[in-house]
This record gives sequence, C-alpha cells and structure tokens, in this order.
Amino acid sequence: MATMALLLQYNGAGYHGFATQKPHNGRDLATVQGELNRALEVLYRRPVDTTCAGRTDAGVHALGQVISYDVSEEELETRTPRVLLRSLNALTPEDMGVRDVWQAADGFSARFDAQWREYRYYLSVGPLPPLVMADFCWHLRCEPLDIQAMNEAAQYLIGEHDFKSFCLAASAVGKPTCRNVLDLSVAPVQIAGQDLVCIRVVGSSFLHSMVRTIAGTLVAVGRGLREPAWVDSVLKACSRDAAGEKAPAQGLVFWQVGYEGYNRHLG
Amino acid sequence: MATMALLLQYNGAGYHGFATQKPHNGRDLATVQGELNRALEVLYRRPVDTTCAGRTDAGVHALGQVISYDVSEEELETRTPRVLLRSLNALTPEDMGVRDVWQAADGFSARFDAQWREYRYYLSVGPLPPLVMADFCWHLRCEPLDIQAMNEAAQYLIGEHDFKSFCLAASAVGKPTCRNVLDLSVAPVQIAGQDLVCIRVVGSSFLHSMVRTIAGTLVAVGRGLREPAWVDSVLKACSRDAAGEKAPAQGLVFWQVGYEGYNRHLG
Repeated sequence: MATMALLLQYNGAGYHGFATQKPHNGRDLATVQGELNRALEVLYRRPVDTTCAGRTDAGVHALGQVISYDVSEEELETRTPRVLLRSLNALTPEDMGVRDVWQAADGFSARFDAQWREYRYYLSVGPLPPLVMADFCWHLRCEPLDIQAMNEAAQYLIGEHDFKSFCLAASAVGKPTCRNVLDLSVAPVQIAGQDLVCIRVVGSSFLHSMVRTIAGTLVAVGRGLREPAWVDSVLKACSRDAAGEKAPAQGLVFWQVGYEGYNRHLG
Repeated sequence: MATMALLLQYNGAGYHGFATQKPHNGRDLATVQGELNRALEVLYRRPVDTTCAGRTDAGVHALGQVISYDVSEEELETRTPRVLLRSLNALTPEDMGVRDVWQAADGFSARFDAQWREYRYYLSVGPLPPLVMADFCWHLRCEPLDIQAMNEAAQYLIGEHDFKSFCLAASAVGKPTCRNVLDLSVAPVQIAGQDLVCIRVVGSSFLHSMVRTIAGTLVAVGRGLREPAWVDSVLKACSRDAAGEKAPAQGLVFWQVGYEGYNRHLG
C-alpha cells in the first residue's frame, strides 16, 4: 500500500461543487470529484476512493485543492507521478487540472493531515466589473469599501471561537461549531491592471459556508452599514440570523492547504 | 461643438474586432464599435461618429481603449460625464464597459492625438493553463521560456524601423511601414497566484498584426528555436515570411494610450 497526493485547480463555475452527488432527476450532476474519479478509474482500471482537503460548494474555485488516495505497490511502480500528471490532465475537462502529483507518506489524508487551509475572497467595487477577474469576484456597485473598518472587524474573528453564527444552519445541528481562525485580513490588490479588494483567511478548518458568511459580514462593515464591533455581537449571538449575507460563490478561491513537510505554497 | 472622450474596456472573445463591419451573409457581426455606437445612438437620439485610439482585431481585449466623438453645446450640457458613464454601462453588453468619461479639448481625436500606445501580451507555460488568466493568455505546453534571450531579441526591435516583416502582408501594400517602438520588454509576472510571462510593448503606433507577430517571434526565441540575433535579420528582410507565427488574439490586451495632459494611466 502507498498513498498518492494531487494538487488540483478548477474553475468552479461549471461544477455543482466538489463532492460527487446522487443523480438529480435521473441525471448525473457535474462535480469536480466526479470528473476526477472518472479519470482515475480510467487510469487505474478500478474505482478509486479520493479524499479532499476541503469540500468546496457549487461555483467556488480552487487553486490549491489537495487530494489523496491509496494505491497498491504495483500501481505505484507502474504509474509514476510524471505520467500521472500528464494522463490526468489529458483525461479531465479543460476547466480543471492537476498542478502537481507526488507520493505522500503512507496513509496520508488530504483532509485529516491538513494543518491549515487558506481561502481568498475577491471583491470588486465600482460601476464596472473588472475585465480579467470578472468571473472570480463579487462585484459590488457601491462606494469604495472602508478597508480599515473591515480589518478592525476581522480582529474579532481571529482566534478560537464558536462560529455557529457563520455556519449554514442545517449543517450546524448537533455538530461542534468551534473553529480556530489563524489569520484574517483585508487588503487592496491590483490584478491585471485593475483594483480589487482581497479578503484572506487562514484557519485550521472551516464550517460549511463560513468563509462566504465572513466575507458577507465584513462587506456590511466595509460599506458602512455596520460598525466593526457589530461583528463581535454576531459571533456571540451563536445564530446564523445574526450574521451578514452569504457572499456569492464566484468570488471565493480555495487557495492552499498546509501540511507538515509539504511546502509547495502558492504565495 | 465640443468633444467627448471615453475610456473603454472589453473582453474581445465575443466580438469580431473593434471596428463595425458590413453584414456577413445578411447577418450583423457583433463588434465593439457596433455595440458602442448603438448605445450612443440611444442616448443622443442620432447616429454618433466614433473614433478609436487603436482598432483591435477579433478576440483581442482592451483595458484602456480610448474613444472620441463630437457633440453639440446643448448635448454637452444635458448629458454630464457622470450620467453618460452610468447610461452607457447600462446600455452596453456585460463584457464591455466604460471606465471613464470626460470632456476633451475641442476637436480632440482619440486616434490622431495619441502620443503612444501600450499593449501587453500574456504567455503561460507548462502542462496546465492558468486558472484566472485562462482566457487572457497564450498557453504554451513547452519548457520554460528563456526570458533573457527574449529581452536580448527585443532590443533589436526598439527604435524606428521598417516593420514590414511584422505586418499583415495585405495591409502593408503601398503604405508606410516604418514605426517607432519606444519600449519592448519581457518579464515574469504573478497574477492571482500563478506564474505568467508578460510582453509589454509601447510604440507611437502599430501596424496591423504587429504586436502579435512580435509576440510570436519573441516566443520562437524564448523556446530556443531561434537565436536572439535572428530577430535583426527578420527586421531587415522586410517580408512577412521572415517573422515568427502570429500569436493568438486572446493573449493580447490593448493596455493604455498616452495623450498630452491626460494622465489616467493604468500602471
């Protein structure tokens, strides 16, 4: 037995999220995992059980999703990382791709061995959506955001807290909702000649919809609809109704995952 | 009489180039100018004659195209730049937009008053196309480019030369083909977490297909298929057959135009 790992990127627009789903009205829904498993099955001539670092929702993009799966010694020897990289990219659709393939430690789990996960959420503000980033941001037709206020609000969320207010209500029932946010910051960025705002969040792990609800909540502060300290009361309310709106999926990119000894970070 | 100017961005993928064209097989072809003129006609309730800084080909994008057109004193007073900006963005398709509107000096021509024009050409190299820039680059499945060699080759093209070898042959017949390239450089850039290569070229004006033929020629050097000095012989040959292939349209962005006294540059 050996364990393989993949670094995966995808444009989420064409997928009903990462995880495979049951057929809907008798039709298969396109998912990232569905496409990936199909390609792996062609290569290994058997079903392959894949584990991901973080399940992304419909429309959410990834630059640094990590996948693990087990192979036999024979499979390890006959399918080198170099060949796997080329074959998987030939077998998967254009809007997803494998950036890296490596042999991980035996029994490595992309999910359970992850030490931290980083997401970035892109905002664009003004009368016009940006050119290159049009499909990778939340375009707000409003006045410039108060980035200092957003960063002030972000401070309340850093550290270990019960993030129940930031979790899709149905997913929170009967499950632990404490999480550790290691870093959360908001900064102006210039991408391909245009000004955007980037929310960067790093955490041990995240609840369902947590990053998008944090983004929507910080945007309410940035637009001046709420004071930064409001975010503290949202946190303490432990109720999804207290937080801001869930920001749209297309602005979110699953950026990278940290593992001990694996250092292919994306900067 | 007064003169208005617009700063325009567009994703070229959906257009048969900038300039309006005669109907093809009885059907109108979508062009940037066609859409813009239609919107201006709605606003001014008359046909509006527009001039652009640079005609872009089918599939070429723009971040900083500039347009000029004349209005009467009455039209100037009743349609402020602020209202024009909002109305034009409401009337034009999603994949194009007006970034700025201002009253220019009387008789200003976006074309004839331009002092310099800047284009950027994006290249991506490796097994996988980039995520965010997928539709805005030429993706080459090759070994890393030799950027130093490309810059060496670029030096031969800077300055005043006869660029006949870099011009679409049919457009060069009986027309002057001397142009002044003010700057041409190649550099690695990181955009939304991924490594690309950007060719930046500034010139007084450009011949038809000139930037894309320069890009294709520099890529031949970057891939090691040609020595940098080959570019000098291409220039001296004064024949389109001597140059490299024309790089695909989707990697090209018409970046900005310089005018005396107008200083909204895009960095």
